[in-house]
Order: sequence, then C-alpha cells, then structure tokens
Amino acid sequence: MEIDQDYRALSVDTLSQRLGGVDAVASRVGGEPASWGIREVGDGNLNLVFIVSGDVGSVVVKQALPYVRMVGESWPLPIYRAHFEYYALVRQAKRAPGIAPEVYYFDKPQALIVMEYLHPHRILRRKLIDGERVDQLGETIGQFCARTAFRGSELSLSSPEKKADVGLFSGNVAIPAITESLVFTDPYYGAEMNHHTPELSPVVDELRRNARLKAKVQRLLMKFTANTETMLHGDLHSGSIMATDTEVRVIDPEFSQYGPMAFDLGMAVANFLMAYFSQPAHRQESELDEYQAWILEVIEACFNHFNAEFRHLWQTERTGILFPKSLFEEQGNSADDACDALLEEIRLDALAYCGIEMHRRVLSLAHNADFEEIEDTALRAKLEARNVLMGQTLIMEPEAYSDLTALADLARAYNQQEVL
Amino acid sequence: MEIDQDYRALSVDTLSQRLGGVDAVASRVGGEPASWGIREVGDGNLNLVFIVSGDVGSVVVKQALPYVRMVGESWPLPIYRAHFEYYALVRQAKRAPGIAPEVYYFDKPQALIVMEYLHPHRILRRKLIDGERVDQLGETIGQFCARTAFRGSELSLSSPEKKADVGLFSGNVAIPAITESLVFTDPYYGAEMNHHTPELSPVVDELRRNARLKAKVQRLLMKFTANTETMLHGDLHSGSIMATDTEVRVIDPEFSQYGPMAFDLGMAVANFLMAYFSQPAHRQESELDEYQAWILEVIEACFNHFNAEFRHLWQTERTGILFPKSLFEEQGNSADDACDALLEEIRLDALAYCGIEMHRRVLSLAHNADFEEIEDTALRAKLEARNVLMGQTLIMEPEAYSDLTALADLARAYNQQEVL
Ligand SMILES: Nc1ncnc2c1ncn2[C@@H]1O[C@H](COP(=O)(O)OP(=O)(O)OP(=O)(O)O)[C@@H](O)[C@H]1O
Ligand SMILES: Nc1ncnc2c1ncn2[C@@H]1O[C@H](COP(=O)(O)OP(=O)(O)OP(=O)(O)O)[C@@H](O)[C@H]1O
Ligand SMILES: [Mg+2]
Ligand SMILES: [Mg+2]
Repeated sequence: MEIDQDYRALSVDTLSQRLGGVDAVASRVGGEPASWGIREVGDGNLNLVFIVSGDVGSVVVKQALPYVRMVGESWPLPIYRAHFEYYALVRQAKRAPGIAPEVYYFDKPQALIVMEYLHPHRILRRKLIDGERVDQLGETIGQFCARTAFRGSELSLSSPEKKADVGLFSGNVAIPAITESLVFTDPYYGAEMNHHTPELSPVVDELRRNARLKAKVQRLLMKFTANTETMLHGDLHSGSIMATDTEVRVIDPEFSQYGPMAFDLGMAVANFLMAYFSQPAHRQESELDEYQAWILEVIEACFNHFNAEFRHLWQTERTGILFPKSLFEEQGNSADDACDALLEEIRLDALAYCGIEMHRRVLSLAHNADFEEIEDTALRAKLEARNVLMGQTLIMEPEAYSDLTALADLARAYNQQEVL
Repeated sequence: MEIDQDYRALSVDTLSQRLGGVDAVASRVGGEPASWGIREVGDGNLNLVFIVSGDVGSVVVKQALPYVRMVGESWPLPIYRAHFEYYALVRQAKRAPGIAPEVYYFDKPQALIVMEYLHPHRILRRKLIDGERVDQLGETIGQFCARTAFRGSELSLSSPEKKADVGLFSGNVAIPAITESLVFTDPYYGAEMNHHTPELSPVVDELRRNARLKAKVQRLLMKFTANTETMLHGDLHSGSIMATDTEVRVIDPEFSQYGPMAFDLGMAVANFLMAYFSQPAHRQESELDEYQAWILEVIEACFNHFNAEFRHLWQTERTGILFPKSLFEEQGNSADDACDALLEEIRLDALAYCGIEMHRRVLSLAHNADFEEIEDTALRAKLEARNVLMGQTLIMEPEAYSDLTALADLARAYNQQEVL
C-alpha cells in the first residue's frame, strides 16, 4: 500500500500551521490559528483525533496513521481507511441525515477529515457504564440502520450507482480483513492476539469445541464477506455512538464496506446486551433492575424501529430494481408480505451477528470497557460467561428469539444464571 | 460507455488483413492470410464469430459489437463485455482446466478474442433436440460448476485476490442488468419485449398473479445482484455448451460476474429440464421414454458430481479465509457437516434459480430452440405449460425436491400432466 509521499502525521504543534490556511477550518474555528486550542483526544485504537477550538467554535480533525495506533508501527494499516471513512460519512449524511458528524473538509493525501465537533455528547459506552439514560436511543439507532440499509441497496439506488460504489469499496481489503479475522474467526480458536479473563476459560474451551457453532459463524462470515446488499457502518458498537441525554449521533465509519443488511443492527444490539450483562458490576442493587430493564427496552425499540422505518421506506422509496412495483402494486399485488419476509430474514441474521459480536468482545483482541473495567476478575468472568452463552444461543437458534419478548426473556434468564 | 476510437468491427473481407500479422493467429492458421478461409458463424444474439482456417489449422475469432446484434444499433451494448469474457475465460482455464476454449490472443480495444476452434463439437442444445447422447455430460457440467464455484470463492482464493476481482467485475453493469431484467423480472409481468406462445396465456396469467412466487423470485434476484460468492459463467444454458459424443466444453462466458454459487448449476439443470419437456415434439414414440430417462440421469449426475467435486475440493483445497482449518481440523473437529450444510443451501438455491430460468425461456425475450422450433403451437404450449408449472414448484418449495429421486419424480409427473 503506497502512502502519498506528502503524507505527514499531524501533531498538536503543527496542526494550526498546517490547517490555518484552510478556510473550511479557519472560518469555523475563528481567530488566529496560532492561538487555537488544540487537544489530541484519540482514545481510540487506530487514529489521531484532535479537537481544535477558537473564538468562533470547534472542529474535530481526524487523521489516519499508517499503522495501528494502539500497537505501533509493527502493525501497518493503510491510511486509505480515512478515504473510506469519508466516503461513508457523506453517504450516511444523504441516506440518514443528521446522524453522522457533518464533514467540513477532506484531504485525501493526508488521510485527514475535518468534521463537526459533537458537544456535549459523550461516548455511549461510557454513559451506559455510568448508568445514564438516553432518550430515543433504540429508536434512533434502529432508524439509522434501516435508512442506511435500505437507501444503500438496490431497493433504492440505481444499479449503476450501486455497482460503482461496490467497485469503489472493493479497493478496501485491509479493513474488512480485520473484521473477518478479529470478529468471525479468532474468537473460536487460540489466535495469537486473543486474551480473555482467566476464570472464563472453562466456558471458552467449551465454546471452541462446538463445531456446529463454528460452522454457523463461518457461514455468517461468508455472508459478510461475499455480500454487497448495502453499505454498512461496519463498526457500530457503543464506542461509535455519541449522545447527550436526548440526542444520538454515530461516528467513526472507517470500517464501512458493502455487506449484509443485518450486520450493523446485530452489532449495535450486541453492545446493548453487553452493557446489560455488565451492569451488576457498575450499578447499586437499588438501581440495577430498573436500569437493566431500560436497556432491554432500548433493544426492543431498536428492532421495532428498524422494521417500522424499513417498511416505511419500502412503501415510499422502492425505486431500485429489487421487488419493483411493476411486479406488485401495478399488478394489484401487495408487496407487504415480501417486505415482512425479508425483515424476518434480516432479524435472524442480525441475532446471529449479535451473538458473534458478543463473543469477540470478550475472546478476541479488542475488548470493551463494559467488562474490561471490572477489576474483580471472578465477577467479570461470571458476567462475561452469561454474555458468551447468550451469544451462543443466538447464533445456534436465532429462530427461537426473533420474537422480542422471547429475546428479552432470554437475556433475563441468562442474567440470573450462575454459570461460573 | 466510451468506445476506443480505433475500434472497427471485423468482416469476412477485412479479417485476414487485420489479423494476418498477429503471430498467435497466423502461426495457428498457417499459409498466406489472403488465402485463409473465413466464415462468419455467429448464430448467437450478440456478437461476431468467425472461423478462420488455413493450411495448419483453424481458430475462432469473436468480437463484440457495440450493440445487440439480433436487435441492431437501437439497442447499444458496451463492447467491454468482451473484456469480461476474456477475464472469465482465463480464470476458468485455471479453475476448471480443459473445459473453456483456450485463448490464443486478446485485443482489448478491438474487443476481440482469438480462441481454440472446437471441432467437431456441436452446440449441446442442437444435440439434445436431435436426440443425441453425450457421455459424461452431467458429470462434466457438475464438476465444472463445482470447480469454478469453489476456486473462485474465498474458500480457496486469497481475500486480496478475490476482492480485487470483485472490483474488476463491478465495472460490468450493462451485462448483469440484462440478466436482472430478462431473467428475474420481465417474465413476471407484461414487459415490452416479452413474447409467449398464444395458447400458453392462461398459464402465464395465473403465474403472474402469484405474488408469493414473485416475492421469492425477487429475493433470489437480490441474492444474485448483491452476492459475490464466486465468479459465475453467468449464462450456462445448453447453447453455451459444445460437445462431441464424448467430450463436453463450455463457451461464451460473456455474462460472467461474481454471484451466488448456485446460479450456474441451476441454469444448466433448467436447460436439461427444458430439453426433457420438449422431447415429445422432437422424438418418435419409440425412442422418447428412453431418451427422456437419459436426460433425467444427466440431471442427477450433474447434481451428484457437483457435490462430490465440491466436497473433494473442500477437503483438499480449503485455503481461503472461510471455514479455516484452524477452527476445524486443527481443533479435532471435522468440517464435513459444514460442507454438507452449505451444499444443501446451494442445492435449494440452484433449484429455485432453475425454476426461474425455466420461466424466462418461454416468457421473456430470449426463448430457446427446444420449444421455439415446435411449429404446432398448441403442442408447444402444452409442453411449455408443464415446464412453467414445474419451474413454479421448484421456486415455491425447493426443499421438497432436494432429494434427487423426488426431483426426477416431479419431472415425470409434470411430463404426464395434461395442463392445457
Ligand atoms: N466528531 C466528533 N466530535 C466529538 N468527539 C469526537 C468526534 N469524533 C471522535 N471524537 C472523539 O474521539 C474519540 C476517537 O474517535 P474515533 O472513534 O473516531 O477514533 P478511532 O481512532 O477510529 O477509534 P476506534 O478505535 O474506535 O476505531 C472518540 O471516542 C470521541 O471521544
Ligand atoms: N470456440 C468455438 N469453437 C467452435 N465454435 C464456436 C466457438 N465459439 C463460438 N462458436 C460458434 O459460434 C456460435 C456463437 O458463439 P457465442 O455463443 O460465443 O456467440 P454470442 O454472440 O455470444 O451468442 P449468444 O447469443 O449465445 O450470447 C456458437 O453457437 C458456436 O456455434
Ligand atoms: Mg475507528
Ligand atoms: Mg454470448
């Protein structure tokens, strides 16, 4: 992967000099570039993220590094991921307006995006760990997934536009490769970079002996890697959602690719479920039940609003080659049943992808704070075990939990179970 | 779609002049170019096809025209289809050696391929109409489909190679668009270019009122258009197969694209079934039963050899990211069940694609000679009706016919049925 020879990583010291002359930045920040307040806040694993503030306002500057930040130069990773993040951000802005940060400026050779500063939004994962509620959380995420899924597919896009996009995104190999191994494969054997809570080992060992489970996961990997239904966010965990108590936004689509409609939905729900299972370590007894109940409501809302919004778009914006009106409405046949059948397929795959995400976050390389910050490893393992086993159930028999009450009951049952 | 400004369609008069200096051609044909025997034999719908003969031998020269030949300049079609045909031919040569014609020369701006002259091979469709048998027909086609399906997927290819290929083929929009409408959509409503045997109308009308059928077909279109499992031939009907009594070859992959593993298999079987249902118009009573029974054996062999070859490759060449040995064999788990489950999914989709191909060949624009050459339209409609209804059954409930005896019984039952 060639890096443009002009590429230079930004730093707190060089940023104002390098971007001071860019009007899209300067006009929004205001004042003398030399007096800008510049903080590097990249708490993430991969990139540089700066908040730049001045008399007028603030912007976020995100730049890809030619390696994985949390590991270092020994793990190179193409900076073109910033290009795909940019492509995804502008598509999301069209397909689900108001959710992704607005893009102010894009410098391709520098792999650099200047975007809207979300404030006072906080990363959702932190809010969930802290026991905060967010209005309309499930609704917004469900709707966001439905809008991007529908409007990025040939239910809506013209075929030439969609196929050109698939061609564009096929240039991205390194990023999907991370998902393919870290999410779908590494959790199920002793891959080198894996780690898990020591006390969880008996559960992990049994999981990895489950050949039927592994076969199902690999079939879902095949659907993920050889499917271009729609443009995904690709990494819609609770660290990619920022929220106030009433507004929900989605950041960081650098793992965007064309893939199955069910993927983002499943990953988002998995992160809600992991928040759910980790709560006993973060909440007082007195608040625990109510807060966990609220998380289950978020999940239900997420699925319901996905379906409602998808159905709405199906009826009002079905302009692509798939399920054309010429075959249905114009022949006096409703296409509603076809929509419901597709939604049921999406639900089942989403539950299975959900189970896989629940596994990889405790078994593979990139864990999540919900569990990772539990210092008592015995307690952590106990909660992780519930999560792992529910994930297994969802992968093995999603049909049994497509009913949302059954799904919530399942979560409640595992939440009571003393596995370890 | 830009055409290279140097592009010129070949003719019988200009060919020797234009290709006489190309060593790959001249050395294989031999003698003075001016004395070459040149015949245009393109009985097809789309392109120019010449047989060029000289002292040493013969070659076939195929050139794309910038429009659909059977229609004329009013239906433009990009000449880049010849590029994809070339890409497909060289990939097939690697993945299933000995089946596609060998490529001797490719001129991209001229959209021109010089290839092996298959002789004394005849188009399989004609042989089936004439009541000829071909040894190893089902075996070879089943094996060809399995080899190309497996070796063109991420079961075998490295991900970077496969993804680059998907990117390359995403440049092809016009050709998939033909399949998307002519195969999947037009048959199911009164599309402008459709035609069918007048006496078949009652059956057609009922078919087009079947909303559940149309929904299933559109779901399969979605799988076809948004799925990059493997590189397909894309047009594997009996007019794309040439054979002697003992050798089977596959030509004309200009509809090649990445798509679902089940597609080629389903289309090939559909063409065997259409040969089967049309036989009463082409055979004497005395030969009919035996010849029809032979066709059913071909179908059974085709499915069986697809599965056997796919299983063999699964065990011996599974080097891609999918179902990796690290999760199965290296953990003491067999991956055989996973292979069988995937093969069952492929079988079901193949049966459904088969049903769709059975429909489009009597309802949409491009019919096939098996039925079309039956001059008695009442008889033709009667045989087409059996074919259409079996197609419907296969689309609606493929699960019931994944057993090959049940499938053959179904064909025999429809073959007796007096529908019209
Ligand atoms: N538009 C924004 N507005 C406010 N804060 C932001 C914005 N974008 C990013 N941040 C902050 O920067 C952090 C890192 O951003 P981001 O997740 O995009 O980086 P990353 O390097 O891709 O990390 P990851 O490891 O999650 O992939 C976020 O967690 C958030 O705190
Ligand atoms: N390699 C070959 N050897 C011998 N004959 C060939 C060869 N290729 C093509 N032909 C003859 O030329 C005819 C047309 O070839 P082909 O099907 O490739 O053309 P086409 O224009 O793509 O037609 P179609 O309408 O089927 O797409 C074939 O039916 C066959 O008779
Ligand atoms: Mg990121
Ligand atoms: Mg052709």
